[in-house]
Amino acid sequence: RNRRLKSVTQREQFLLELRATGWMEVEDRDTLYKELHFKTFNQAFGFMCRVALQAQKMNHHPEWFNVYNKVQITLSTHDCGGLSKKDIRLAKFIDKVALSL
Amino acid sequence: RNRRLKSVTQREQFLLELRATGWMEVEDRDTLYKELHFKTFNQAFGFMCRVALQAQKMNHHPEWFNVYNKVQITLSTHDCGGLSKKDIRLAKFIDKVALSL
Repeated sequence: RNRRLKSVTQREQFLLELRATGWMEVEDRDTLYKELHFKTFNQAFGFMCRVALQAQKMNHHPEWFNVYNKVQITLSTHDCGGLSKKDIRLAKFIDKVALSL
Repeated sequence: RNRRLKSVTQREQFLLELRATGWMEVEDRDTLYKELHFKTFNQAFGFMCRVALQAQKMNHHPEWFNVYNKVQITLSTHDCGGLSKKDIRLAKFIDKVALSL
């Protein structure tokens, strides 16, 4: 079972880096949100494929919306009702893949 | 340039079959909407991959949202501000793929 990030110090430590790359905290749901723009649908969906494989491996799946070159992602952990370390890990992976495109 | 489906007779003819498979017309935006449920994320994203390849081929892309085994799709044609024959074609393709899973 995943544990929710509750300690302020722990959250700050994890979230500092993610805020710098454009992740936003959605306070009322305790989730992380990011909007990514690519050049084309091909790039956007290619990105989604790489994230999907990682999500499947982690058994931790994003909520995401795509239209053409835009992808909006929301991360949270259902079984703990908020952010867990898995969300931080998936967010960092997403940033790595987005940077590589 | 794509032409919007305006004639009532023409629309009815195209939409009759799609309504029967769960597509709904979103009146205020003149779009088609459908929600699909699969067994797993693997099936849901596999479905999305097949639709993405077709969308790329048609140069006609869906608006879609996915979380785990659920996919919500909205179809409309940007350059004509409503439904065109491309939306009907893509909707039928989506039904075909969903049936095959």
